[in-house]
Amino acid sequence: MRIAILGGDGFVGWPTSLHLSSLGHEVHIVDNLSRRWIDTELGVQSLTPMDSIQERCRIWKEVSGEAIRFHLLDLARDYERLRQWLAEWRPDAIVHFAEQRAAPYSMKSDRHKVYTVDNNVNATHNLLAALVETGIDAHLVHLGTMGVYGYSNVGAAIPEGYLDVEIENLEGEKKGLEILYPTRPGSVYHMTKSLDQILFQFYAQNDGLRITDLHQGIVWGTHTDQTRRHEQLINRFDYDGDYGTVLNRFLIQAAIDYPLTVHGTGGQTRAFIHIQDSVRCIELALRDAPRAGDRVKIFNQMTETHRVRDLAELVAKLTGAQVKYLPNPRKEADENELIVRNEQFLALGLEPTTLAEGLLEEVVDVAKKYAHRIDRSRVPAVSAWTRDIAQRVERDPEGKALKSVS
Amino acid sequence: MRIAILGGDGFVGWPTSLHLSSLGHEVHIVDNLSRRWIDTELGVQSLTPMDSIQERCRIWKEVSGEAIRFHLLDLARDYERLRQWLAEWRPDAIVHFAEQRAAPYSMKSDRHKVYTVDNNVNATHNLLAALVETGIDAHLVHLGTMGVYGYSNVGAAIPEGYLDVEIENLEGEKKGLEILYPTRPGSVYHMTKSLDQILFQFYAQNDGLRITDLHQGIVWGTHTDQTRRHEQLINRFDYDGDYGTVLNRFLIQAAIDYPLTVHGTGGQTRAFIHIQDSVRCIELALRDAPRAGDRVKIFNQMTETHRVRDLAELVAKLTGAQVKYLPNPRKEADENELIVRNEQFLALGLEPTTLAEGLLEEVVDVAKKYAHRIDRSRVPAVSAWTRDIAQRVERDPEGKALKSVS
Ligand SMILES: NC(=O)c1ccc[n+]([C@@H]2O[C@H](COP(=O)([O-])OP(=O)(O)OC[C@H]3O[C@@H](n4cnc5c(N)ncnc54)[C@H](O)[C@@H]3O)[C@@H](O)[C@H]2O)c1
Ligand SMILES: NC(=O)c1ccc[n+]([C@@H]2O[C@H](COP(=O)([O-])OP(=O)(O)OC[C@H]3O[C@@H](n4cnc5c(N)ncnc54)[C@H](O)[C@@H]3O)[C@@H](O)[C@H]2O)c1
Repeated sequence: MRIAILGGDGFVGWPTSLHLSSLGHEVHIVDNLSRRWIDTELGVQSLTPMDSIQERCRIWKEVSGEAIRFHLLDLARDYERLRQWLAEWRPDAIVHFAEQRAAPYSMKSDRHKVYTVDNNVNATHNLLAALVETGIDAHLVHLGTMGVYGYSNVGAAIPEGYLDVEIENLEGEKKGLEILYPTRPGSVYHMTKSLDQILFQFYAQNDGLRITDLHQGIVWGTHTDQTRRHEQLINRFDYDGDYGTVLNRFLIQAAIDYPLTVHGTGGQTRAFIHIQDSVRCIELALRDAPRAGDRVKIFNQMTETHRVRDLAELVAKLTGAQVKYLPNPRKEADENELIVRNEQFLALGLEPTTLAEGLLEEVVDVAKKYAHRIDRSRVPAVSAWTRDIAQRVERDPEGKALKSVS
Repeated sequence: MRIAILGGDGFVGWPTSLHLSSLGHEVHIVDNLSRRWIDTELGVQSLTPMDSIQERCRIWKEVSGEAIRFHLLDLARDYERLRQWLAEWRPDAIVHFAEQRAAPYSMKSDRHKVYTVDNNVNATHNLLAALVETGIDAHLVHLGTMGVYGYSNVGAAIPEGYLDVEIENLEGEKKGLEILYPTRPGSVYHMTKSLDQILFQFYAQNDGLRITDLHQGIVWGTHTDQTRRHEQLINRFDYDGDYGTVLNRFLIQAAIDYPLTVHGTGGQTRAFIHIQDSVRCIELALRDAPRAGDRVKIFNQMTETHRVRDLAELVAKLTGAQVKYLPNPRKEADENELIVRNEQFLALGLEPTTLAEGLLEEVVDVAKKYAHRIDRSRVPAVSAWTRDIAQRVERDPEGKALKSVS
């Protein structure tokens, strides 16, 4: 298949590109490299030394014999070029990773909120409009997030995208109705994924676009079978307070003798998936394309859930690190349950790589190897969700008031 | 109160500005005049001769002694100026009309889809981000549409914004959950209003913004008590295939001996409200502001529902016009029921001006008075929802194949 990987220079996009290329697909990466620019803006860098995308593609050709082509294109700003590129190249499938994806970054300031909404909504909608306009019947696979549901405390398992509800009609009879599982996003970033859902629903219904939306958990780990093949194919690894995600951050903190920083009580339960499983899920989703006229196919792309403080304790036991409780910069419930259904990927053959599998140590090894590249001042999370929270965090940066809670 | 009217140069915004000004409020209009530019793009003009906004404000001052100030500002593109303006002027309330509001225009081409999403989502989100950033605790009243619900055929009355559903938890118990009434938008324009809902839900929850969302029916009529006060205060009146809405279009068609063009079987049921009631509802909504921490307050702003073919017959009877059935350029069900709850506005004192009230003739009189300004070639609706529909309409422009259906 001819596959376009939008956002293919990113943390999940790059290993996905390699994985699909190694399966024999013709892979083209489209990216505006905004993520690299954000590193520059924040004054941080990937823990792992990451080559330019052009260099990475060159090395992959050397190592595998397969070509991956790169196109510099901003999906949100260059609608005309996007449409022309699609019309010329006519992909069979498109994997869409190209959005600003950090919740803390999206809450940093008004400018960051405005950027995230503008970038993410326009990137996704431009793509949909261009597919309709060019009449390309490609299967679109989009990366969404489990976070749209806002980790609510209903105590029910989160289904794969849809919910059957009953509505009472005028005769007092109950009528069944299938709706999108209601979202309750907790950050501007998560909100954009909730908006994406509605864009997809409309374009599937109005234009028969074939769309799969993967509601992904937090991705951990760094290597996949392909990134291991050459030092210069290494994946990016974010550890800073904005882009570093919780489990990977704990592993890095452990590697540099930094206390594992838990926000609030650490009672938040989150869904996780290893990067190797993430790329495998995308392969599986691509094989299971919906047909024109089908509703949007939604998968929960995760393999296990954990409470944040349990993860911290697990990593502490493994590495001897300290755990430190800090005020939570996010506006969210202190504690939540999270039960997630993921039967669809299991039925398609996914064999989960769980935390128990020993890969945690591999990540600590990577972190130790590159520990000299870490700027310790960039490890704390600083974006506060509201002004009140920002003041609270400032008054009590060490979380003294929290001790009693945890 | 100091009230900012965003989109105050438009069809509902202008009479709202006059109405609130005549009640003694300090009114400032913000508009980028994009609607006037779209007239130029489409080569159409308001049926009624409409002065510049500056001239209209000057006349209002002459007639009423009250000042209305105008600010040229693009909410979607000038975030920084919007924020500065708010910070300086600090309104007590904001009425937000400033969006591209025609479904047919939003479906005209890929460029129009892209413009509508970009303009509407960014306008609304920029406003929300600026309110949080400036710390202004203004009551925000937004104009949404009944159309977000997609006129589904559940046979249940559409409630005012929310639905109680039951979710089965892991112990098999049913737990109640209040959700936004699920939307099913039928055009890119309606989709943007569905996106707005999610923006509002987030900012009310995260930042305590006080927001009212008015899900409005189709507005008909042209005069209000204030626009009648001077020829140059006249309201705009759209009759073209993109911006003219169904009842007003029938009345204009009748005035120029054009057949009343019904799309499809005319079995679509729609919700309606007279322009005088629309401005009165906004006054009522402003008085009934939610408190910080409240969920978004949602009203159905409509007074009656009618089937399109019944309206056509009513206008035909009143004026002697012909009714003509044409292929429907929209992708929608041929026939739908629509029952809408609107107890909230009635409880606040709204006294509906219904079609029966004789105001239909006033509109026909206005149409006749300015009939010489009508370009008959602009009356047909030409934007088709999909390529297939466009071809069908082209093959059978006279709707011959429809005769059997209607
Ligand atoms: N990493 C996770 O834990 C995680 C979890 C759930 C969901 N996701 C989703 O998976 C996707 C990929 O995540 P990631 O961690 O690889 O993110 P990333 O930031 O590393 O990669 C995103 C890539 O998209 C590019 N991009 C952004 N906006 C663009 C635009 N307008 N035009 C062209 N390119 C653009 C960036 O330059 C970057 O290379 C995202 O959509 C994210 O929301 C990620
Ligand atoms: N007219 C109806 O029948 C109807 C029905 C339901 C809902 N509504 C809603 O009511 C609101 C007003 O409708 P209307 O009929 O008065 O529309 P309109 O097009 O006449 O007025 C909208 C005004 O907003 C301005 N505007 C648009 N984008 C802007 C931007 N980015 N920055 C600043 N100004 C901008 C336009 O120039 C215009 O003056 C709309 O939001 C519409 O969706 C209207």
